[in-house]
Amino acid sequence: MPSVLVILGSKSDLKVGQKAASTLKKFGVDSEIVIASAHRTPDRVRSLVEDSDAKVFIAVAGLSAALPGAIAAFTIRPVIGVPVSGKVNLDSILSIVQMPPGIPVAAVGIDRGENAALLALEILAIGDEELSNALIKHRKEMAEQVEKDSAEVGD
Amino acid sequence: MPSVLVILGSKSDLKVGQKAASTLKKFGVDSEIVIASAHRTPDRVRSLVEDSDAKVFIAVAGLSAALPGAIAAFTIRPVIGVPVSGKVNLDSILSIVQMPPGIPVAAVGIDRGENAALLALEILAIGDEELSNALIKHRKEMAEQVEKDSAEVGD
Amino acid sequence: MPSVLVILGSKSDLKVGQKAASTLKKFGVDSEIVIASAHRTPDRVRSLVEDSDAKVFIAVAGLSAALPGAIAAFTIRPVIGVPVSGKVNLDSILSIVQMPPGIPVAAVGIDRGENAALLALEILAIGDEELSNALIKHRKEMAEQVEKDSAEVGD
Amino acid sequence: MPSVLVILGSKSDLKVGQKAASTLKKFGVDSEIVIASAHRTPDRVRSLVEDSDAKVFIAVAGLSAALPGAIAAFTIRPVIGVPVSGKVNLDSILSIVQMPPGIPVAAVGIDRGENAALLALEILAIGDEELSNALIKHRKEMAEQVEKDSAEVGD
Amino acid sequence: MPSVLVILGSKSDLKVGQKAASTLKKFGVDSEIVIASAHRTPDRVRSLVEDSDAKVFIAVAGLSAALPGAIAAFTIRPVIGVPVSGKVNLDSILSIVQMPPGIPVAAVGIDRGENAALLALEILAIGDEELSNALIKHRKEMAEQVEKDSAEVGD
Amino acid sequence: MPSVLVILGSKSDLKVGQKAASTLKKFGVDSEIVIASAHRTPDRVRSLVEDSDAKVFIAVAGLSAALPGAIAAFTIRPVIGVPVSGKVNLDSILSIVQMPPGIPVAAVGIDRGENAALLALEILAIGDEELSNALIKHRKEMAEQVEKDSAEVGD
Amino acid sequence: MPSVLVILGSKSDLKVGQKAASTLKKFGVDSEIVIASAHRTPDRVRSLVEDSDAKVFIAVAGLSAALPGAIAAFTIRPVIGVPVSGKVNLDSILSIVQMPPGIPVAAVGIDRGENAALLALEILAIGDEELSNALIKHRKEMAEQVEKDSAEVGD
Amino acid sequence: MPSVLVILGSKSDLKVGQKAASTLKKFGVDSEIVIASAHRTPDRVRSLVEDSDAKVFIAVAGLSAALPGAIAAFTIRPVIGVPVSGKVNLDSILSIVQMPPGIPVAAVGIDRGENAALLALEILAIGDEELSNALIKHRKEMAEQVEKDSAEVGD
Repeated sequence: MPSVLVILGSKSDLKVGQKAASTLKKFGVDSEIVIASAHRTPDRVRSLVEDSDAKVFIAVAGLSAALPGAIAAFTIRPVIGVPVSGKVNLDSILSIVQMPPGIPVAAVGIDRGENAALLALEILAIGDEELSNALIKHRKEMAEQVEKDSAEVGD
Repeated sequence: MPSVLVILGSKSDLKVGQKAASTLKKFGVDSEIVIASAHRTPDRVRSLVEDSDAKVFIAVAGLSAALPGAIAAFTIRPVIGVPVSGKVNLDSILSIVQMPPGIPVAAVGIDRGENAALLALEILAIGDEELSNALIKHRKEMAEQVEKDSAEVGD
Repeated sequence: MPSVLVILGSKSDLKVGQKAASTLKKFGVDSEIVIASAHRTPDRVRSLVEDSDAKVFIAVAGLSAALPGAIAAFTIRPVIGVPVSGKVNLDSILSIVQMPPGIPVAAVGIDRGENAALLALEILAIGDEELSNALIKHRKEMAEQVEKDSAEVGD
Repeated sequence: MPSVLVILGSKSDLKVGQKAASTLKKFGVDSEIVIASAHRTPDRVRSLVEDSDAKVFIAVAGLSAALPGAIAAFTIRPVIGVPVSGKVNLDSILSIVQMPPGIPVAAVGIDRGENAALLALEILAIGDEELSNALIKHRKEMAEQVEKDSAEVGD
Repeated sequence: MPSVLVILGSKSDLKVGQKAASTLKKFGVDSEIVIASAHRTPDRVRSLVEDSDAKVFIAVAGLSAALPGAIAAFTIRPVIGVPVSGKVNLDSILSIVQMPPGIPVAAVGIDRGENAALLALEILAIGDEELSNALIKHRKEMAEQVEKDSAEVGD
Repeated sequence: MPSVLVILGSKSDLKVGQKAASTLKKFGVDSEIVIASAHRTPDRVRSLVEDSDAKVFIAVAGLSAALPGAIAAFTIRPVIGVPVSGKVNLDSILSIVQMPPGIPVAAVGIDRGENAALLALEILAIGDEELSNALIKHRKEMAEQVEKDSAEVGD
Repeated sequence: MPSVLVILGSKSDLKVGQKAASTLKKFGVDSEIVIASAHRTPDRVRSLVEDSDAKVFIAVAGLSAALPGAIAAFTIRPVIGVPVSGKVNLDSILSIVQMPPGIPVAAVGIDRGENAALLALEILAIGDEELSNALIKHRKEMAEQVEKDSAEVGD
Repeated sequence: MPSVLVILGSKSDLKVGQKAASTLKKFGVDSEIVIASAHRTPDRVRSLVEDSDAKVFIAVAGLSAALPGAIAAFTIRPVIGVPVSGKVNLDSILSIVQMPPGIPVAAVGIDRGENAALLALEILAIGDEELSNALIKHRKEMAEQVEKDSAEVGD
């Protein structure tokens, strides 16, 4: 059973979901990508969530983006919501961020699959020194990349 | 069994829901107001919808406003969504309007409980001459009220 | 006489209107697409609406998008408004959603011709078991498609 | 017959309409305030416009604010639209500004009845030296008032 | 001397300005297109306006779009402002619409050069029966075009 | 050492922070509220974060709301950002949600201190059956409250 | 002659302007508050700017907020623009921020008179060690205040 | 040591940063472009700022755009923030403009690297007659260019 279940609201969200999955994989964390629509397949959302041993859920959705909240309604595990860009953009951001009191969703930036994965990794790393170290190492690599980029620009 | 089921996302939406119910009542159409949260009580939303013989659902919700879509996921009866005003306003409007392909919701204006009821009445009036006539009469009364208001203003 | 009259504000809205018409056709419901501008041809809007036996109107318009409301002013039949995308997008959404008290319009999402049609079908299906069953079947097909998409993604 | 007809979408727009009327009066230009709703009384809008000899129309409306465009559809006289503030504000502004090609409306700022009047006066002053002079005098008085305000502030 | 002076904030606004000029030309009204920036050439804006006998000014500008207001500050002739589209769009719309009390600008829709011209023509037509008739004829032609478009669509 | 450190950007964010702290307390989870500004006290933000053994950080901030990201820059523990309402509202929401790739922040809704706490609790509950059960119990109580509210409304 | 000239678009902007002036005063920098409207008194804006020896200008304005840009058009001294809150808020922010290429304005936050003053002080402090030290001291005091606030909250 | 340090939040902001640097160069003012992320390299931001003798900082960043404020937290020299365009645009604008009281940032328009440079030049020119004259000359050239553009358009 994967530690993280990545649920897409539709096939068109695949690219964003794959950014999440590949980021998780780099850190040796298993994930699975499935598609389940809060509106077209509410039962499927429910059964996927209830049948899953995942410790964290990542939900990727555009437009009115009900999926992250629909998942959160069936689990007390953390749910990370990724708004997907489209014709309006404020729609998916606000739909995911503005959850009512009692049922939280953790919103990340628009199309930010990699950040959803990194947030999931941070959550999983709380009791896991090895993963913590990997995240610290990744932070260092990112910092070094910034310095390299800066050196190139300064040439 | 009422013809229209008015579902509120929370108790704080009551005032908007009552505008809907009282408008329906004026036209002799029974309705019932219940509270069911898409996020706090997803099962309750489902069972209320599936156990209902209502011909039309009115869903009243603020913030990320998933309720209208959550209802629409469990019925092929028309679902009218009423966004409720708050600190952002665009959140509930966009969450209700921007439904994905396949599962429609009929959005009305922010806090517009009375218009949700009138839309429900228009839907119910399609095969009902008496109700059609009542709506036509109501239109006339509104028009006359505009003329009266205008006369007062002109004094 | 078609059950649904699809009225476009201008020729440039045709693609969205055709999504509505083709969806209706799949369910065996006749529709007709006409063009009538609330601003350039107010008389034509009026006569098209008053001369029509349509049970539901679908109005497709961009920009200040007065068409759905202009139709609603002349009929007590349900009017579904479809905002069309452009340079601003919030303009057509808000113009259609934010109707004043007394004259409702049922707004669907931006460019969502198919959802306008499905909402019309849901309205027509209230007294029509065959159409109800067709809608239920369509819901199942959509759900199955989600599962198929999910299986492909999981490969 | 008044030179300017001020049409309000509803009684609640009266305060904004009165700012327009009182500004016109200060310049000796007759106006009349009437109420006519584009949605509740489309016929009344039409007949008011067609029966009027007004040289300029001022239309005051909030929400989806179709009134200025509905008036413009029936006249080639200039129509000035005043958006009225409410829960969203961008709704009335965009509904009035974003008119489609062919039928112009002159939008002024939100709740800016006095500017609608001044724009009407500028239009009427084109062939009227006396009114032109009055407007020039008003500009001077405004400028002097700014200087007086500045002097007070500097004390 | 042209009856309408079309002032562009920058060369990049030319296309929108030309829509205005060509529309005016179709109605036999002379116009001239000039460029003058409220920020780069405030003196030029002033002298162009003060030296002009134009009865109406059309100002075309994007971004913070101060030009229409800067023109209005130096004339009591009607100033029509045309917001130009860019990366934000709400910037030029709001900058032009939200003028302070006392100095009106007539805002038309984003990139709507043709509507600016038609509004100018409506203003010029107040005391000009021939131009009024030309505008009425243009309205008829637009209406006929809608009917033709509709017929094509219906084939 | 508290499991959750609640950092406020300024004293004016206290009410939102206290909602978080009191929610955590109800679940028997220790927290501490401190104030540290990303802009006025960057060193203090850093030392508070680096010296803390907290497993989760909650950052509460309005306006340009850099605090959650500033905390995330110094820790690989999960950081939950709570936008605070003000004159614009979209400012704090977008500043917190739209983090760049590499450094995630978990955004919750505007002024939603309680949801920040619940998200923190969900994160802490991953390896903690007792806390998991407490969260499940809380969900049930919320659901029961909805039913009670509904019963009252239906009276 | 004051080092900083604070220009208000109207008397209603006084409170924001006074925050700027009193902040400057605390640092021993003279300023003067005057009122001059870009639209009602363009000449006055020009002469105030051209006659001034001020090293920095602070311009306070709401709505379409042309004042900062109008000042910048007549000086190569730095101009700091302060948007003032109103019914829309995005109007004054975008009007001030979105200046065209060539004529910069330094925008600060909505109603942020004190930050405008601090930015002016930072500019003036470049060649002034005493003022630099005063600013550094002020930073320290702000930081200490944050710590005091934090200590109180933690009680 | 360069007078102006241009700091980019990421390599993708290079084009905007180069507009700033090349504008500075035209006026004979040295600058250096470096990359430093407020979130990925907070230490680097700090040391770059603290080790720099720059009189003015230009910070270029998109999305939640914390960089300008992060720089301002470590210096009392003026910091000019340039929002970079992306999928939302209001995010970077509001994140940079809406700084909290006490720590100012000077925001310029979206992608406006050249205006950031010109603002820096205006700041540096306060005590520098030669640079002042160069800026005055540049203003004249811009004005002449507008006149040339206008002449071309008028052909």
